Amino acid sequence: MTLSEQYNSVRKHSEIICQPLKTEDFVPQPVNFVSPPKWHLAHSTWFFEQFVLKEHLPDYKVFNDDFSFLFNSYYNTVGKRVFRADRGNITRPGVQEVFEYRAYVDMHMQILLQLKSEELRELLELGLNHEQQHQELLLTDIKYILGHNPIFPIYNEDLDWENDTNAETGFAKIEEGIYEIGHDSEAFSFDNEHGNHNVYLHEFEISKTLVTNSEYLEFINADGYKNFKYWLDEGWSWVTENKIEAPLYWHKIDGEWFHFTMNGLQKVNPEAVVTHVSFYEASAFAEWKKMRLPTEFEWEIASEKFNWGKRWEWTNSAYLPYPNFKKPEGAIGEYNGKFMVNQMVLRGSSCATPPNHSRKTYRNFFHTDERWQFNSIRLAK
Amino acid sequence: MTLSEQYNSVRKHSEIICQPLKTEDFVPQPVNFVSPPKWHLAHSTWFFEQFVLKEHLPDYKVFNDDFSFLFNSYYNTVGKRVFRADRGNITRPGVQEVFEYRAYVDMHMQILLQLKSEELRELLELGLNHEQQHQELLLTDIKYILGHNPIFPIYNEDLDWENDTNAETGFAKIEEGIYEIGHDSEAFSFDNEHGNHNVYLHEFEISKTLVTNSEYLEFINADGYKNFKYWLDEGWSWVTENKIEAPLYWHKIDGEWFHFTMNGLQKVNPEAVVTHVSFYEASAFAEWKKMRLPTEFEWEIASEKFNWGKRWEWTNSAYLPYPNFKKPEGAIGEYNGKFMVNQMVLRGSSCATPPNHSRKTYRNFFHTDERWQFNSIRLAK
Amino acid sequence: MTLSEQYNSVRKHSEIICQPLKTEDFVPQPVNFVSPPKWHLAHSTWFFEQFVLKEHLPDYKVFNDDFSFLFNSYYNTVGKRVFRADRGNITRPGVQEVFEYRAYVDMHMQILLQLKSEELRELLELGLNHEQQHQELLLTDIKYILGHNPIFPIYNEDLDWENDTNAETGFAKIEEGIYEIGHDSEAFSFDNEHGNHNVYLHEFEISKTLVTNSEYLEFINADGYKNFKYWLDEGWSWVTENKIEAPLYWHKIDGEWFHFTMNGLQKVNPEAVVTHVSFYEASAFAEWKKMRLPTEFEWEIASEKFNWGKRWEWTNSAYLPYPNFKKPEGAIGEYNGKFMVNQMVLRGSSCATPPNHSRKTYRNFFHTDERWQFNSIRLAK
Amino acid sequence: MTLSEQYNSVRKHSEIICQPLKTEDFVPQPVNFVSPPKWHLAHSTWFFEQFVLKEHLPDYKVFNDDFSFLFNSYYNTVGKRVFRADRGNITRPGVQEVFEYRAYVDMHMQILLQLKSEELRELLELGLNHEQQHQELLLTDIKYILGHNPIFPIYNEDLDWENDTNAETGFAKIEEGIYEIGHDSEAFSFDNEHGNHNVYLHEFEISKTLVTNSEYLEFINADGYKNFKYWLDEGWSWVTENKIEAPLYWHKIDGEWFHFTMNGLQKVNPEAVVTHVSFYEASAFAEWKKMRLPTEFEWEIASEKFNWGKRWEWTNSAYLPYPNFKKPEGAIGEYNGKFMVNQMVLRGSSCATPPNHSRKTYRNFFHTDERWQFNSIRLAK
Repeated sequence: MTLSEQYNSVRKHSEIICQPLKTEDFVPQPVNFVSPPKWHLAHSTWFFEQFVLKEHLPDYKVFNDDFSFLFNSYYNTVGKRVFRADRGNITRPGVQEVFEYRAYVDMHMQILLQLKSEELRELLELGLNHEQQHQELLLTDIKYILGHNPIFPIYNEDLDWENDTNAETGFAKIEEGIYEIGHDSEAFSFDNEHGNHNVYLHEFEISKTLVTNSEYLEFINADGYKNFKYWLDEGWSWVTENKIEAPLYWHKIDGEWFHFTMNGLQKVNPEAVVTHVSFYEASAFAEWKKMRLPTEFEWEIASEKFNWGKRWEWTNSAYLPYPNFKKPEGAIGEYNGKFMVNQMVLRGSSCATPPNHSRKTYRNFFHTDERWQFNSIRLAK
Repeated sequence: MTLSEQYNSVRKHSEIICQPLKTEDFVPQPVNFVSPPKWHLAHSTWFFEQFVLKEHLPDYKVFNDDFSFLFNSYYNTVGKRVFRADRGNITRPGVQEVFEYRAYVDMHMQILLQLKSEELRELLELGLNHEQQHQELLLTDIKYILGHNPIFPIYNEDLDWENDTNAETGFAKIEEGIYEIGHDSEAFSFDNEHGNHNVYLHEFEISKTLVTNSEYLEFINADGYKNFKYWLDEGWSWVTENKIEAPLYWHKIDGEWFHFTMNGLQKVNPEAVVTHVSFYEASAFAEWKKMRLPTEFEWEIASEKFNWGKRWEWTNSAYLPYPNFKKPEGAIGEYNGKFMVNQMVLRGSSCATPPNHSRKTYRNFFHTDERWQFNSIRLAK
Repeated sequence: MTLSEQYNSVRKHSEIICQPLKTEDFVPQPVNFVSPPKWHLAHSTWFFEQFVLKEHLPDYKVFNDDFSFLFNSYYNTVGKRVFRADRGNITRPGVQEVFEYRAYVDMHMQILLQLKSEELRELLELGLNHEQQHQELLLTDIKYILGHNPIFPIYNEDLDWENDTNAETGFAKIEEGIYEIGHDSEAFSFDNEHGNHNVYLHEFEISKTLVTNSEYLEFINADGYKNFKYWLDEGWSWVTENKIEAPLYWHKIDGEWFHFTMNGLQKVNPEAVVTHVSFYEASAFAEWKKMRLPTEFEWEIASEKFNWGKRWEWTNSAYLPYPNFKKPEGAIGEYNGKFMVNQMVLRGSSCATPPNHSRKTYRNFFHTDERWQFNSIRLAK
Repeated sequence: MTLSEQYNSVRKHSEIICQPLKTEDFVPQPVNFVSPPKWHLAHSTWFFEQFVLKEHLPDYKVFNDDFSFLFNSYYNTVGKRVFRADRGNITRPGVQEVFEYRAYVDMHMQILLQLKSEELRELLELGLNHEQQHQELLLTDIKYILGHNPIFPIYNEDLDWENDTNAETGFAKIEEGIYEIGHDSEAFSFDNEHGNHNVYLHEFEISKTLVTNSEYLEFINADGYKNFKYWLDEGWSWVTENKIEAPLYWHKIDGEWFHFTMNGLQKVNPEAVVTHVSFYEASAFAEWKKMRLPTEFEWEIASEKFNWGKRWEWTNSAYLPYPNFKKPEGAIGEYNGKFMVNQMVLRGSSCATPPNHSRKTYRNFFHTDERWQFNSIRLAK
């Protein structure tokens, strides 16, 4: 595939994701960490306009001067921006105008790609991978918006993601020794995966399966949410202050557990893997099982011994720089480095991850109480 | 006009107000006290369905069982409801469906009105006055939504409300004595105006004009917002904590004052009456002028001596029950009485008040920090 | 009594109130609205130093330059001051030094009183009445501090305040007409009572008794705290958010109601008058009884027809200026006027009010959720 | 030294720390993370009563049944306890009674130590190390209490801690390779240091000096606090929301920097090492210097190549379990493990650390915004 074809393919995927939405669904921001679908579509477009077209296409005229202010996410280098919490209040530009913005930028990108695609390859790949990250957020944010509507609208009747099951059983064993970590091929990767380096791992075993709803229900039924001794201290505060009793999207109706899925409200399937748990819940479940979560290095080394890719998997590693991590110069330097504190690493990828956007060195990261991504638990010992 | 004609006319007015809106504008709830336009349209419809059709039209079938939960505002008597703060997250039912809901209810209301309009007159008048109250909120909430968009969209180029000026000058004097207060005609009025009673007023003078932007700018320029001595203690906290420096919607751009109007961002017109001030600001301005705000009783008695109707006018009266105030039985009893604490009375009506919805005995009420209504200041001494 | 004797008597009373305290009890500020006993003793002394000695005693040298910053309560006119919320963290000056401060100021006050007591009478009376107000707060703040210690220390075994009962029965009736309100004798009164004026009262009846614990228990047992329909809307939020189930200081232990008293934890006495209720609770109880609270004007006129003085009595009047209210010039002008918003008036006086500090025109005021004063409920209809 | 002598020596040290305090100083809790000195004295005593005497001394009678509730810190296993935020409101038991409690427990501990000290050695060492941890907190909490009093009381005129300087210069270099981490001697250590294990380190250099006030002032003067690009995203929020402009206890007076020290308010000494910085500040300073903080493993291995012990040193390692970390059974298991999330490791020890309470494997940990400990910055590259 040429870069130009790749560009078209990725950009089109964002719009396909939004096809089942009504105009109204594009607008709201129900909580700070969720963004309006409209905003995702515009922001990923702004990324190309700001970092590619304005820099590299001669005489490029921006679509609308206001958009840099409206659709900058967190690049302080680039100037003022709308407060994150206010994204849901910006009704204009409307959905139609955002799609026009996409078309305008795409047209100019195609011109630019004809002119000089190779010298911009690195930057373009970053822009496309950035858009792919927002594609996953689009899906999880749409699920959040629909899932917090008391009438539980269906996103897509044909999606069966929440019924994903395990294919293997048992544990894989890894020997003690020195292992190499990090990305070193020519293919695209983010700065936070760079800096190949050695780590020393002690012998460990890691499960070939993700925890299932059935296992997780045992934890619930054993009063796992009511016994402080399984929980990290902050986790226990989180559980008690927020009255948490089950994974996100679970509802107990007349004694039976249902959960909100991309296909509306459904009974919880015991065979399927548990989804939408916080790091606190993953950690408490592991403690209850008398096991632990793997570190991100254990996960990376062991990942060739099990199937992965249906759920992001919490590790017990904090999101910190690798040795020799180098923050790129300029605004792009704000991409990853400044978030390297008080978050935990998730490894793998999920049902919501777009095609060609996963590799075993990929470092995803979220706060310990966040659970609206498609994540799950893999145990180690 | 027959009741049926009145019904059509009032209901149609809500939809006319929404004509300049795009679909996206109907959705957000930027702050708790503002509701999505979509919600206003559905809620005022639900009021007729819940309190009129379900009770009085034989065999009436509700449009959608979920709507009572979604569009009940605060009637605890009627059952569970969506938390006020979450109204902006409910994207479905969409705008189109809300308009269908209105059409469905209107059609059944017309049937009912043919059957027995007279015996339901009181209830219908309440429902129509309720809708009229939401019409004013629709306009002020739309202004709030558009006015908090950094690109300042225009609602209606032909509206010139923010340029309203005074027609008279000077003060009117009222003699000491016993005066009668409250509503006593046959025409519709709310329960909070009932209970005709006497009050004793001491001699006072009241301005025939509202405070102008020019006068208010003098207060600003005299550092009125920076000197605690003009402010109530709570007002001073409000000013300092929220860094208030001018009325709502005012922006100082390159040394000059602009404000957001129904016609977009405009220069402040010095001749026009000041608008969008809180009770705290009204009180501080009066203190600075060495005058005071009138009580609601003074206002009601003096109101025949000056023009009013362009702005709600803050009084120095707390919103409390009149002697012999009687809370109606049932859910309708929640209409007014339960709000009679920690709010101040505003008298008059405004440019945003619908036709046939004002009278000198009308008691409007807001919290002391609220200023998104079209309100202003009239001084007394 | 000469002014000098009055001065000594009032000042001594503050110290007598503190006799049962240990040094540690003088220090904490458990919530914003409670001040450390040490602070009360120093602040009321600072009032004399700041407003009397510095102005009127030639060559007076302040005890300690820091104290004006430390012990100014809310007089912005006088300069910077410690934030109210930080009063409990100021361990130095210690209790001993505060008593030395009192002795120093008292000594100089006696010198001044020999020189020119009569010309300062008005100011001195204000200072002494100010100290008396803090004496009542001292007692209620001490009760709050001890009452929030899980081991419930006794303040004074001989105090039996919480067992106060009613002496009369029935209702008094007042005729419709014009009545005169406000203070007009030569004796001391606060600025908020001045401005004699007429009010028009409609016929009403007012109870000769305060509500008893027994009656209030009926309200509790009738699920009064669980039924929104008795409550103001803000009251209902207050009850549900704070999980209020009974008056302040009440604890249900093994199915029986106890309350914390000046004499430690005791069984609730059904004959005694209910105490420590918020305005919201008073209002809900009245609604449940199908009666109402009197206005402050009704109370003032009717007060000669019943006994009062054991509890502050919530009225349904907001704390607002009387006609012709005049704020004094200078810092003393901050005494009352700036609090005239969003508070309700209580009339009467309480078991904790010092001698010679009550009169029927006295206007006390608190926020609607405050209940750590010795207050109660009198019904009207 | 026998265990009994050790016990006496450690216990006496806590009381020596408190000698300069007035009774009032023992009471307040100005913020959640600071505890009243009185509480530290009682809590460390309760630890011996609860975990040693009640378990191991036959017929031991607790000093006071209420104390377990009052002075349990966070051991959920042991039962109910006072909320952390309320520690400052508990005036009784008073300081005198707390000292009596200490004497009572000490006397019984001496009896127990005669009976069976060896078999309890492990538990006793934990109790004494626990008390030593509270000794450091006692000092830093006392500094916080006095340092937030606007009159800046002196704790001890003879302490010169804030003038500590560096003794060496330059950088130490460590070769790439496998290194052993963790505690493995017979001597006491905490569970979080156990689990000896290998790590692979890449070559690095580490400074032999801590950052000085002079270097830190350069950062301040270069607008380091005003430029987002040096800061972690959360750090930048912390700086802007809290208006941070300098280390804790620093005050700019007439253009010159002072700081509160154990010896009162003093000019900042440029030669001394910078103290009281948060992890965010340490990280931003390192970024500005184009260097980084060491990991805790780098620090442990390099620690023999430089002097340390005057300040706790922030590392860029999150506080997480070592491989094979085992949580002890029972309440003691709550000691460390449950805090292993969202905190960063500090290594070394400080001027406030008691004698015999430091070693190169010691893992201290605090949240990224906490800076009231005596901590500083060591750079690596």
